[in-house]
Amino acid sequence: MVAASTAAADPDALPSWNDGPAKSAIMEFVQATTDKSSPKFVPPAERIATFDQDGTLWVSHPMYAQVVYCLDRVPAVVKSKPELAKVEPFKTVLSGNREAIAKLSMDDLFKILAATLTGMSVEEFRAEAKKWLDTARHPRWKRLHTELTYLPMQELLKYLRANGYKTWIVTGGGQDFVRIYSEQVYGIPPEQVVGTAAGTKYGYDKNGKPFLTKEPKLLLNDNDAGKPEGIHLMIGRRPYAAFGNSTGDRQMLEYTKAGDGARLAMLLLHDDSEREYAYGPAQGLPDTKVGAFTQALYDEAKKQGWVVISIKKDWARIFAFDN
Amino acid sequence: MVAASTAAADPDALPSWNDGPAKSAIMEFVQATTDKSSPKFVPPAERIATFDQDGTLWVSHPMYAQVVYCLDRVPAVVKSKPELAKVEPFKTVLSGNREAIAKLSMDDLFKILAATLTGMSVEEFRAEAKKWLDTARHPRWKRLHTELTYLPMQELLKYLRANGYKTWIVTGGGQDFVRIYSEQVYGIPPEQVVGTAAGTKYGYDKNGKPFLTKEPKLLLNDNDAGKPEGIHLMIGRRPYAAFGNSTGDRQMLEYTKAGDGARLAMLLLHDDSEREYAYGPAQGLPDTKVGAFTQALYDEAKKQGWVVISIKKDWARIFAFDN
Repeated sequence: MVAASTAAADPDALPSWNDGPAKSAIMEFVQATTDKSSPKFVPPAERIATFDQDGTLWVSHPMYAQVVYCLDRVPAVVKSKPELAKVEPFKTVLSGNREAIAKLSMDDLFKILAATLTGMSVEEFRAEAKKWLDTARHPRWKRLHTELTYLPMQELLKYLRANGYKTWIVTGGGQDFVRIYSEQVYGIPPEQVVGTAAGTKYGYDKNGKPFLTKEPKLLLNDNDAGKPEGIHLMIGRRPYAAFGNSTGDRQMLEYTKAGDGARLAMLLLHDDSEREYAYGPAQGLPDTKVGAFTQALYDEAKKQGWVVISIKKDWARIFAFDN
Repeated sequence: MVAASTAAADPDALPSWNDGPAKSAIMEFVQATTDKSSPKFVPPAERIATFDQDGTLWVSHPMYAQVVYCLDRVPAVVKSKPELAKVEPFKTVLSGNREAIAKLSMDDLFKILAATLTGMSVEEFRAEAKKWLDTARHPRWKRLHTELTYLPMQELLKYLRANGYKTWIVTGGGQDFVRIYSEQVYGIPPEQVVGTAAGTKYGYDKNGKPFLTKEPKLLLNDNDAGKPEGIHLMIGRRPYAAFGNSTGDRQMLEYTKAGDGARLAMLLLHDDSEREYAYGPAQGLPDTKVGAFTQALYDEAKKQGWVVISIKKDWARIFAFDN
C-alpha cells in the first residue's frame, strides 16, 4: 500500500506536463484508485486504461500514418493487378494529385486497404509494413512516424503501469499494423492492442506447413461504437481510464465514464499550431477528416466531466527530441 | 537466469504428474525456453501458452457445461417467447427426452445459444450465468462445474506462469461465459480468454447511460481453424505451447508446432474410465460428439511430435478433492 501510494504521488512521474487541471486530474485519479484505504480503490486486476493511438499517442496530421502506408503500397498493388489503374479510387491515388487524394472517403480508403492487404500472409504483411515504418518519414519533421509519439503520453503510460494499470491501445487503425511497433514504441505488447481487424484464413502451403492469410472480411471496425464493442470483445472489462482525441473516441469515453467508482476520461485538444497542430470547430477552426474534434464533442466533454488536455497549456514538451 | 532455471527445474512443480514422457516433455520445454544460455531461449514477452478448456482443463462429459447451461435456460426463454415451444430444437429440449437431446446437432445448439443469449445486456448475461455456475452440479460428482478442473493442469498453468509464460484459454466455448470464472478458477484474467464470440451492440438506456447488448451475429467460431484465427485476432503472436484434447484443437496444435525453435504441443487422451472417462476410436471405443478424439488425430499427434498425455498413466491425481 505504501509503495502504491508513493508511486501514485511521485512528483517526478510526469515531467513534461505543466501543473494544471489535466495533470491534477491524472494524479488524483491514480491516488484514489490505488490507495487501499480509498473508497474508490480498484483491485490491480481490474486496472485497465485504454488509449486511442492516432492523434492521442502520436501525430496524425496531415494524414494517418497507416493511410500514407496504404497509398504508398498502391503502385505495387496496381503492378500486380493492372486492371485497377483505371478504377477509382486507385486512379486518383496514382494521379498523385494531393488535393484529390485528401478528399477520398473512408469507403475509398477501405477499398484501398482491402486491396493492399488481402491475400498476404500475416508474416508477409508484418515484414512489408515494418520495412515502410523503418523508412517512411513525416513531411514536416522528416522523422520516422514511430519517433512522433507524444512524450507526455509516454510518461502517462509509464506512470499508469507503475501504478498497476494494464495499458491498452484501442485504435481505429489496423490492429495488425499497430501491433508491429506497439511494444517497441509504447511498451504495449501486441496482445494489448485492439484495432480495426479483418479476418484471416488458416491454410497450408505446398509442404503442408500451416499459415494465416489476411482476408477482406471486416471483423471489427474499431471506431465510434466499435470501440466499446471492441473493448468488450478483446478485453472483456470496462476501462477505468480512457484517452482519446476525436469523435471516433466518443463512445469509448462515454462507456468508460459510465462505470461505477472513479473513472477518468480525457480528451486531447490539438490547439498548438506552432509546436504541433490546431484544428477543429471547438477553436473556430475548420474541421478536418483526420481526428475530427467537433463542437458537439467538446460540449459533451464538459457535460460528462471528461477532462480536456490542451497541448498548448498542459504540455511543457511534446516530443522526446524537443529541446 | 538462475531464478528462471531454478523455477524450470523445480522438482515439486508438478506433484500430481507421474514421472514419464509427458512430464519430462513439459519440464524439458520449460528449461529449454527459459534458460538464457539455451539456443532455444524465448524472451519473456513472447512466452505464450494456450489451453483449450472443455476436456483439457475441466471435465466436458457427458455434456459441455455451457450446453447444459443453455438447455437449462430454455424454459425461461420459451416463457418469454411462447411460440418457440412448438419449434425445433426447443420442442425437443422441452420434452426432457435425454436421448433426443443428446442427438441435437451443433446447428441446433447454436440456435438455442442465440435464443438464450440474444438481447441481454452483457451485465445481465454475466449475472444470469454466474447464478447458474454457483448452483448447477455435475451429474456424476454432484459438484459445481468449477470444481471439476484437472489438478495436474492447474499445476501446469502455475508452473508455466512461474516461468514467465502468459497463459491463455482458447476455447470453443463462449468467450463471455468462460470469462466469468476464468480468473477465480484458473488465475487467468478475462482478457486472456479467447472463445467463440458473438457481437455486441452499443446503445443507451432511457437515462442516456450507455450499455452493450449481446447480438446474434457470430464474430468468431473458435473451433478448428477458428482457433489459430482467433489466436491471431486476440493475441497476435503464435503460441510456444498449446494444449488440447479433441479434433477442435487440431489446427491450434499444428499452428503452434509449426513455429520456429522449441514448441510444445500436447494432446490429452481421456483413457481412464474409472477415475474419469474413456472414449474415442483411438482406444477402440465409440466416438462421442463431446471432444471427439479420432484415430486420425492420434495419428497426426504421432507424426507431428505432439506429446500425448494419458490420464491413466500420467496423472497421479485428477481432482483437488481426490484423496
